[in-house]
Amino acid sequence: MTYKAPVKDMLFNMQHLAQLEQVAQLPGFEDAGLETAQAVLDECAKLNEDVIAPLNWEGDKNPSWFKDGQVTTTPGFKQAFRQFAEGGWQGLQHPADFGGQGLPKTIGAACTEILNSANLSFALCPLLTDGAIEALLTAGNDAQKATYIPKMISGEWTGTMNLTEPQAGSDLALVRTRAEPQPDGTYKIFGTKIFITYGEHDMAENIVHLVLARVTGAPEGVKGISLFIVPKFLVNADGSLGARNDVHCVSIEHKMGIKASPTAVLQYGDHGGAIGYLVGEENRGLEYMFIMMNAARYAVGVQGIAVAERAYQKAVQYARDRIQSRPVDGSMNTAASIIHHPDVKRMLMTMRALTEGCRAMASVAAAAYDAAHHHPDPQARKQNQAFYEFMVPLVKGYSTEMSLEVTSLGVQVHGGMGFIEETGAAQYYRDAKILTIYEGTTAIQANDLVGRKTARDGGQTAKAIAQQIEATEAELQASGSAHALAVRKRLQAARAAFLSVVDFIAGHAKADPNAIYAGSVNYLMLAGNLMAGWQMARALLAAERQLAAGEDPAFMQAKITTARFYADHILTRIPGWRDAIVEGAVGVTGMALDAF
Amino acid sequence: MTYKAPVKDMLFNMQHLAQLEQVAQLPGFEDAGLETAQAVLDECAKLNEDVIAPLNWEGDKNPSWFKDGQVTTTPGFKQAFRQFAEGGWQGLQHPADFGGQGLPKTIGAACTEILNSANLSFALCPLLTDGAIEALLTAGNDAQKATYIPKMISGEWTGTMNLTEPQAGSDLALVRTRAEPQPDGTYKIFGTKIFITYGEHDMAENIVHLVLARVTGAPEGVKGISLFIVPKFLVNADGSLGARNDVHCVSIEHKMGIKASPTAVLQYGDHGGAIGYLVGEENRGLEYMFIMMNAARYAVGVQGIAVAERAYQKAVQYARDRIQSRPVDGSMNTAASIIHHPDVKRMLMTMRALTEGCRAMASVAAAAYDAAHHHPDPQARKQNQAFYEFMVPLVKGYSTEMSLEVTSLGVQVHGGMGFIEETGAAQYYRDAKILTIYEGTTAIQANDLVGRKTARDGGQTAKAIAQQIEATEAELQASGSAHALAVRKRLQAARAAFLSVVDFIAGHAKADPNAIYAGSVNYLMLAGNLMAGWQMARALLAAERQLAAGEDPAFMQAKITTARFYADHILTRIPGWRDAIVEGAVGVTGMALDAF
Repeated sequence: MTYKAPVKDMLFNMQHLAQLEQVAQLPGFEDAGLETAQAVLDECAKLNEDVIAPLNWEGDKNPSWFKDGQVTTTPGFKQAFRQFAEGGWQGLQHPADFGGQGLPKTIGAACTEILNSANLSFALCPLLTDGAIEALLTAGNDAQKATYIPKMISGEWTGTMNLTEPQAGSDLALVRTRAEPQPDGTYKIFGTKIFITYGEHDMAENIVHLVLARVTGAPEGVKGISLFIVPKFLVNADGSLGARNDVHCVSIEHKMGIKASPTAVLQYGDHGGAIGYLVGEENRGLEYMFIMMNAARYAVGVQGIAVAERAYQKAVQYARDRIQSRPVDGSMNTAASIIHHPDVKRMLMTMRALTEGCRAMASVAAAAYDAAHHHPDPQARKQNQAFYEFMVPLVKGYSTEMSLEVTSLGVQVHGGMGFIEETGAAQYYRDAKILTIYEGTTAIQANDLVGRKTARDGGQTAKAIAQQIEATEAELQASGSAHALAVRKRLQAARAAFLSVVDFIAGHAKADPNAIYAGSVNYLMLAGNLMAGWQMARALLAAERQLAAGEDPAFMQAKITTARFYADHILTRIPGWRDAIVEGAVGVTGMALDAF
Repeated sequence: MTYKAPVKDMLFNMQHLAQLEQVAQLPGFEDAGLETAQAVLDECAKLNEDVIAPLNWEGDKNPSWFKDGQVTTTPGFKQAFRQFAEGGWQGLQHPADFGGQGLPKTIGAACTEILNSANLSFALCPLLTDGAIEALLTAGNDAQKATYIPKMISGEWTGTMNLTEPQAGSDLALVRTRAEPQPDGTYKIFGTKIFITYGEHDMAENIVHLVLARVTGAPEGVKGISLFIVPKFLVNADGSLGARNDVHCVSIEHKMGIKASPTAVLQYGDHGGAIGYLVGEENRGLEYMFIMMNAARYAVGVQGIAVAERAYQKAVQYARDRIQSRPVDGSMNTAASIIHHPDVKRMLMTMRALTEGCRAMASVAAAAYDAAHHHPDPQARKQNQAFYEFMVPLVKGYSTEMSLEVTSLGVQVHGGMGFIEETGAAQYYRDAKILTIYEGTTAIQANDLVGRKTARDGGQTAKAIAQQIEATEAELQASGSAHALAVRKRLQAARAAFLSVVDFIAGHAKADPNAIYAGSVNYLMLAGNLMAGWQMARALLAAERQLAAGEDPAFMQAKITTARFYADHILTRIPGWRDAIVEGAVGVTGMALDAF
């Protein structure tokens, strides 16, 4: 087996960090307790370990293939997608009214991780479909919901997200695709969209493109962008498929990684105009697209965790098997498996701690999402929403940046074999690099964190979280164990650095934006590192309690050691970032543009 | 043009940091002053920019190709290699007695960087040949030198280094290839060697394999390894080529990067035994191979600098061309080229500072090498040798690790385009990953640094270097400029962390080797970072002096800003590593092996 889902760790997080039993008390989630979670994760693991994971390397060798406007996916993908859809996995987090399972994100996010560990390229199709469903649920009218959502949940159709154009990447103000209103209330869409994930493929009967375009006469900039449904095949009144719409794939990209996932260039309106249906109101497209993007950003963060987990498992396996050199402590007289060597252990621990830390962070964020949407108390909803929104750029930005480090270490553990493609470690390294780019680069996440999530409320949300961290420090102090005290020391230093940066940002965002944004990515890294480390500290406390109760000592002991490692090796990166942010802007802003 | 050699920065380093004018006073280097350096670098730049650099992407698209025991290199490589050889570049640092130019390493290393920036895959052939020449110069007998070295310097023949076997990667004690003594004084070699760079190709008439093997009856372990010359074609007494030797390429690897460089599996002795000639004495092979390896390790470090420079140049170009989003400070009312955005500048500055810092470190190390080999005073030779040997694992380990960060940022600056292969940024990211692996992984370099270079002399060499750093701090203090004082603060903190780690290592290497080696790579990163940062601090001082003298203000100002950036953004990483090393071993050693 090439991958085994870390179900035990996921359940530990849900139980002890995300408080799933509290989520299960929210209206609508009554059946979503630990028992359900265990059952769902076990089933999810089975399908992904047995069917989808083995297709991962296959997809790298035999990527999606473009010919005459058609895309043929990797052999096996189509059948696997049928199994995935028939198992109900596309609808896991979506409402039962439309055929979904209505499970909380706290459980759903773990399934997303398992699917992405199994096969990042494959998982992108459901990931984008999830986003399209969520956008239509929020902004679509009843007829649109009824027409499109059940078919997407059943996996008969899939969804896409069409933002990027050659001249408009991160900057959607530059979008040029235009929509001409028609007498019948529809629009004709004209333009070129690039980087459209699963923009064309053979895994479903129809593709529901959600497209940003500018209605004739709309204002310039982002305030003139509207959102349209543009199905590949028009849909008849009875729900059956009608005429082919005027949207065509003209090529797919030749990429460094996620090669099985077709990245399409789509041409709209070359034959008279693609028929589009307005979603919500004109000129509010960006707002609706943000719903989709926020869902997708969280999911891409989970992709980072997923590819890191897979790389970790592969590296552990190799480190157990590969015999090379005697242990440095003289404990063996012959060459040992390399997992005995301290630096190999350090690399594996780094991979493990980063992965577990980000998983814990994402789990807690998911629980906040569930409470923000389902809690009966408006004040609790508001608080949870603020927490969740603060976490989204961290889950996206930090988890994906850490996945670059983890997949690089994964290659490194393999030595020379890691550089040989057939070994498989290199694929994770290549695949992971897209994660810090798509759905908003790390810098875009950092802008969001600095602007909307920190400066806008004067650092209030950030400081409220710091208070919660302080409470965890007190619990570590109260525990009094050597590990807890060591972790407390690091957490305290990291929190102090965080607060120093938050004050710097809140105090200078308007007066000196160049200095603030010169530190934005470092702030994101610092905050993500701290949030993950905080959750590891909470995990240590929980593991100590479980250990005292005699629960699963091997697992709990490993969790404690991993939390300790995180504190000493990962949290210790934080004070340096503080210095670079608060005192280091001059080294960035001082460089003349023509001196580069 | 896709690459422009940074000749000005190289000359600045030679003049102000490596003190080339002092090198030029060493016996044998009388003509090797700044004027010579400038002339050599300009010529070198011309060939590489015009001829070799354009073949880099070509090599990625059309890698070396194996069929029926033959390897065909990328179209254009063979002709380019002829031009390279005919220009005398292979002999740059080798003695005039054998047809070389006899230039110091201080100049030669800069040429190595230029060649590797132009084309990492291409450059590997000369790189390995250099190592083979150096090994034969040191350990070969006169007949061997006369037979092989002039032909390798002329580029008619090339050299290889045969260490690795399937079961013996980093651990040469496991080498099984055997050498059977023959009545005529030759040996018959039997075995399989893997990962042999340019082990087979069509760019030269003959290939001189230097092969580690075990003579029948030799002791086990590394003390029973001997070094042999095994030419692809035997050489007649008159120097002409004779019979094909029994060494054959059976396949080449399918790699993530450096695809144009053929990585061969070589089979020795399948048809009766390959004829080999003993180099030096039996059972001293490892010692001789270390000559070659040390040359190659330094050169691989330069490869890291080289690929980082190329990635930097490409990213700057894209950042100037790509228009996206308004500046955050409201200074423009329209979308600007992304080089205006603070985070893009931060990324470019990170790339630049790491690259310039490592280049400066390597330049100073090269000057020490020259003095170690040519200084008339034995005491000076010894000191320089100790300094150089301390620097080799840092140049190799730190420069290559930083190249992973730089090439990753290079992709990131390009956004989505960076992930598209045709853009070219991805190639650097894929190519660079081998650099932390071959010629000894970063962990192997770190073992060398901890064991032979630090613990063995109780930290004396390390502390002597720290004293030199302290002297630089005093100069910064004396300068009194805001930049100098800011850099001094960071340098002082970094040096204190370094000394704390050196004491920890010197004090615990025997008592607690697992704890020491758990921190070995962090120590390497810390020390490499410090040495590069120290050189940047010296560069700042020199640039301030030049600026005061009215010399090239734009260049000097940029150097000062880059040094300041290095201090605030890169040196600040150091104290965290100290904590992880000195206080963090328990998180590594505490994990039970079966808990991974």
